[in-house]
Amino acid sequence: MIKAGIIGATGYAGAELVRILTGHKDVQIVWYGSRSYIDQKFADIYRNFFRIVDARCLDDHMEELAEEADVIFTATPQGYCASVISEAILSKTKIIDLSADFRIKDVDIYEKWYGIKHQSPQFIGEAVYGLCEINREEIRQARLVANPGCYTTCSILTAYPLAKEGVIDMNTLIVDAKSGTSGAGRGAKVANLFCEVNENIKAYGVTTHRHTPEIEEQLSYAAGEPVLLNFTPHLVPMNRGILATEYASLKKPVTMEEVGRIYQEYYGGERFIRLLEPGTCPETRWVEGSNYVDIGFQIDARTGRIVMMGAIDNLVKGAAGQAVQNMNLMFGLPENEGLDLVPLFP
Amino acid sequence: MIKAGIIGATGYAGAELVRILTGHKDVQIVWYGSRSYIDQKFADIYRNFFRIVDARCLDDHMEELAEEADVIFTATPQGYCASVISEAILSKTKIIDLSADFRIKDVDIYEKWYGIKHQSPQFIGEAVYGLCEINREEIRQARLVANPGCYTTCSILTAYPLAKEGVIDMNTLIVDAKSGTSGAGRGAKVANLFCEVNENIKAYGVTTHRHTPEIEEQLSYAAGEPVLLNFTPHLVPMNRGILATEYASLKKPVTMEEVGRIYQEYYGGERFIRLLEPGTCPETRWVEGSNYVDIGFQIDARTGRIVMMGAIDNLVKGAAGQAVQNMNLMFGLPENEGLDLVPLFP
Amino acid sequence: MIKAGIIGATGYAGAELVRILTGHKDVQIVWYGSRSYIDQKFADIYRNFFRIVDARCLDDHMEELAEEADVIFTATPQGYCASVISEAILSKTKIIDLSADFRIKDVDIYEKWYGIKHQSPQFIGEAVYGLCEINREEIRQARLVANPGCYTTCSILTAYPLAKEGVIDMNTLIVDAKSGTSGAGRGAKVANLFCEVNENIKAYGVTTHRHTPEIEEQLSYAAGEPVLLNFTPHLVPMNRGILATEYASLKKPVTMEEVGRIYQEYYGGERFIRLLEPGTCPETRWVEGSNYVDIGFQIDARTGRIVMMGAIDNLVKGAAGQAVQNMNLMFGLPENEGLDLVPLFP
Amino acid sequence: MIKAGIIGATGYAGAELVRILTGHKDVQIVWYGSRSYIDQKFADIYRNFFRIVDARCLDDHMEELAEEADVIFTATPQGYCASVISEAILSKTKIIDLSADFRIKDVDIYEKWYGIKHQSPQFIGEAVYGLCEINREEIRQARLVANPGCYTTCSILTAYPLAKEGVIDMNTLIVDAKSGTSGAGRGAKVANLFCEVNENIKAYGVTTHRHTPEIEEQLSYAAGEPVLLNFTPHLVPMNRGILATEYASLKKPVTMEEVGRIYQEYYGGERFIRLLEPGTCPETRWVEGSNYVDIGFQIDARTGRIVMMGAIDNLVKGAAGQAVQNMNLMFGLPENEGLDLVPLFP
Repeated sequence: MIKAGIIGATGYAGAELVRILTGHKDVQIVWYGSRSYIDQKFADIYRNFFRIVDARCLDDHMEELAEEADVIFTATPQGYCASVISEAILSKTKIIDLSADFRIKDVDIYEKWYGIKHQSPQFIGEAVYGLCEINREEIRQARLVANPGCYTTCSILTAYPLAKEGVIDMNTLIVDAKSGTSGAGRGAKVANLFCEVNENIKAYGVTTHRHTPEIEEQLSYAAGEPVLLNFTPHLVPMNRGILATEYASLKKPVTMEEVGRIYQEYYGGERFIRLLEPGTCPETRWVEGSNYVDIGFQIDARTGRIVMMGAIDNLVKGAAGQAVQNMNLMFGLPENEGLDLVPLFP
Repeated sequence: MIKAGIIGATGYAGAELVRILTGHKDVQIVWYGSRSYIDQKFADIYRNFFRIVDARCLDDHMEELAEEADVIFTATPQGYCASVISEAILSKTKIIDLSADFRIKDVDIYEKWYGIKHQSPQFIGEAVYGLCEINREEIRQARLVANPGCYTTCSILTAYPLAKEGVIDMNTLIVDAKSGTSGAGRGAKVANLFCEVNENIKAYGVTTHRHTPEIEEQLSYAAGEPVLLNFTPHLVPMNRGILATEYASLKKPVTMEEVGRIYQEYYGGERFIRLLEPGTCPETRWVEGSNYVDIGFQIDARTGRIVMMGAIDNLVKGAAGQAVQNMNLMFGLPENEGLDLVPLFP
Repeated sequence: MIKAGIIGATGYAGAELVRILTGHKDVQIVWYGSRSYIDQKFADIYRNFFRIVDARCLDDHMEELAEEADVIFTATPQGYCASVISEAILSKTKIIDLSADFRIKDVDIYEKWYGIKHQSPQFIGEAVYGLCEINREEIRQARLVANPGCYTTCSILTAYPLAKEGVIDMNTLIVDAKSGTSGAGRGAKVANLFCEVNENIKAYGVTTHRHTPEIEEQLSYAAGEPVLLNFTPHLVPMNRGILATEYASLKKPVTMEEVGRIYQEYYGGERFIRLLEPGTCPETRWVEGSNYVDIGFQIDARTGRIVMMGAIDNLVKGAAGQAVQNMNLMFGLPENEGLDLVPLFP
Repeated sequence: MIKAGIIGATGYAGAELVRILTGHKDVQIVWYGSRSYIDQKFADIYRNFFRIVDARCLDDHMEELAEEADVIFTATPQGYCASVISEAILSKTKIIDLSADFRIKDVDIYEKWYGIKHQSPQFIGEAVYGLCEINREEIRQARLVANPGCYTTCSILTAYPLAKEGVIDMNTLIVDAKSGTSGAGRGAKVANLFCEVNENIKAYGVTTHRHTPEIEEQLSYAAGEPVLLNFTPHLVPMNRGILATEYASLKKPVTMEEVGRIYQEYYGGERFIRLLEPGTCPETRWVEGSNYVDIGFQIDARTGRIVMMGAIDNLVKGAAGQAVQNMNLMFGLPENEGLDLVPLFP
């Protein structure tokens, strides 16, 4: 039995971790960390867990938790994990950080986009970027995994094979992404009130969203060249789901079949990536509550572009589900253990 | 391995049955019946099942299905099951009917409220009303179970202990219920279009909704006297969930503690009924995707009334989940097998 | 030109006042009061008013405002208006208070339900309860109008003629009401975040909601006897709209026609009350953005009850629209001036 | 008084025309055409008009209508207007066609994208493309106006000044658009049911949507060169609103101020175009129910691209409002007559 501790258990991603781990036969949650709700019953904060989880929330003592837990999930704002991590802790337990702290290899880029000083740059090198379908082997060996962002997971996986195979001109890549509101977190802000989000769609963080350099870095590795792109997130009046619509010019004309074969080659054996039938567009409703990434594409011969589309549940494959997938790899378990979640529709 | 056939697999309740049975370790679905989509892949109709269910939809041959299946779920409009059932079929397989055909013991009442002639009144007597928490023992022995309606499940369970114990004046009982739109089914009707349902709430079927006599009959058994009540359903712009707000005059003053004790006595041992802390109101979001019934209440000393409230997921405890719970009982399995579904939030 | 000042202009009701008054040909808004946003452009807070309203928000100086304005709307939390009102102010300007401060004649009841001490009980007697369809003549003469609550407007108007005519047994009256989320205000609270409200319905304030005594008082006047009732509000995932479903036993059997005639007698000449065709249920979508009250009913001969239903837009007839209707009366304008708003659908 | 007839009055765009014309002081609607609802009261189909519109729906007799009406609005599917128009009709009345029949000058392109034969190509030359801000003078003289599509109105106006001024490389233009569901019409289709649209976002018509050639044609005129672009529409779970997010490479570096000046030059005097403060993103909620186009942009120096964003209400500026704006021009009325609609929020 793996003993797992969660720091930040009462955010939406943290609570989704609880949901998934509750159904994972090899894991026991030993720590529901939540600085905001210390000593309160977790099930009073998330009443879906009434009669399922009896525990109370605890403060965020990493040292103490490191003694108890085999793995710590930090579902916390950027800066937290970097401020508490240490060799002492990593020598006793594994860490899966759901924040951005260890996702970006270039500390200057991190500090510039996030506007904060990195507290533990010495662990950046060791941290493995936890996109399982791409870095599976490194993740198996890792002590510290940087769990990818929700937008980035979807954006990278959708374009990766074509970037890697040199099919698309990376200078032309545009990622137009749309997210459900759970991605905005559970903080009490006017902008996220029901009446402000409902019956509305808007772009935000245009040209400045922090997931941009993370996508660029990973796709640069894939393409073998520096990548700069436009990433535009939008807020959609729904709870869960991210759809990324990505545009790029084809380096040379290709057929639907050729592109299909490339995706198949990379993802044909992947449990959590579903390559849709040619011409089918992914929709967030078909992955809700599950760890799937649904991918489709369309070639436009008129313009010489390809439109790639990917859909995930931002709280599962975009956060908690991928974290558990990483955990499974790190502990030598079947990668899908606890993750065979059938999407909930309607 | 129990072989299960579903007639009406491509309605919302049928598809939810597929979702739940897919995660049930003792069941194999052998028949995805759907007259509307014969020969089409089930996963083309419900793309959440892409790469999970490979089967194609079949026509509705009860005779043939009875040979293959240990249990048949009929998730069909009223009248269907009554028109195809026979002793020959029941001698070979068990039937769990999700329609209203065998819920009401008085065939005249059925025919009056549903406006159709009952085709198989000879099986009404044998059919067991499949409200597991109330008729558990009879269900274990049944060949034919009438799976309760969504509104009725919620309405009956919420009031049952107080009706049975004579705490409330049954002549004063009013059930004001609110349902998500999946309860209206997947038929293409203008009234159920997104733009017609969104940003709206309405009552419908006022004084005439067909779940009324079903609630009345069951609560009459509980109270030991004939019960007539007002049941008013409302359509809410959300996918899933039913909330029943029920009002009744107390026969004599009682305390919150006394009422709490009665509920505890009846439901304290029930896996799928969660009695909320005193003063807490149930909300549909906390049961979404699960088989739970959440129940709360409030006494109003000023008016001498009690307000009872229950919440369920209409597609799970209100349809497919309860059907599987019935199946578990009929086949001697643990009642919660395949049903330990953690509610999905947000 | 009537000069109007608004205190609390940046709440949802305040902003709706701005919308309506902007289209009112006899009114000029001279004061956009908002303590939270002093000196900020009103159109930066509500960007629908960009290029329509140029003014900046001001602090809440009632004295100064009384010099400038012919009428002051206080769209503020309870306690505010009572704490600032004075004879000096009322001698210079009229006040339409959208809070509860002057709605309830019995100060003890106010203080008990609202849990605060009333700061200006000396004006309670003078204040006119601003339900135009009932108190039209008194409103014309008033200096101080207590604009009714949103739930109360809908609840009272729906039952009023039958209460007044003695058709229903007032001891049996139950009001089950459902509201859009704008009724919860624009305060930053976790409970009102999109993801918490969306895909959910819940009751709240069961037996304790503060609109209860307001409904009871007005219906007591109508019935000529003390009325105690159960009022249960519910939160619906939509922006605007209130639906009240009201149940009462009939004192003696009546026909649909007889009840229809009574409603007709009271409301047949009312511009803003629409009596629906017999058997038609009101829906909030049909009144959205307008000052209408839609009323329907159904008699249940089986139970001897009547189900009355009313629908309003909580921000218009339930707040800002009614306030303008009151203003029109107080200033001798046509009652519908600026209020002929066609409901927006879809 | 202008006598107006509407063919297709019971679609969403037709009903919105009724709403706007009802508040237009110079117009009287003389014909509510609706083949589906002949002889039924219009207000029974759209109950928001109860007590506002008393008329019944009529069949679609263009000949007869041409005698009665000064202007005919055809809010009908493609092909209808082309099949009924004639010189006889145009000699008696003006036509504003809300369908695509006369929007595209090249009949081959029309027939290819729409898959139908054009029935009246002889009027294509005469028809004026009714984008008021661009073709104002021609519209004033027109007998036949082709009212632009919803997506196209938003997409074209957002990019037009920069296309015209040669600021952007037209070969790089990508339009990623998001629409509320009223754009899908009121037809009873499973795909548009509440439960199918709610909690979902999807792209559709990728590379094949029929608004593509319309956008291309108009931007070609602006740019003075042939334009091919990618246009991707998405369906958003909300009733109204279109947001277009448009990407293009800058021909040479420009500043926010320079671009702002260009927009100002083109649109500074436009009543219905609101140029947002630099860095502000348009949101559909701020234009709901109004004829406004809100436009914002952001320059990305890193990638050398500009992100242009426009928001409209698809039923107003994207259909009925623009049609009335065209009518005002054609009849020499103030362009904003009946169109000073304050956006409804929340």
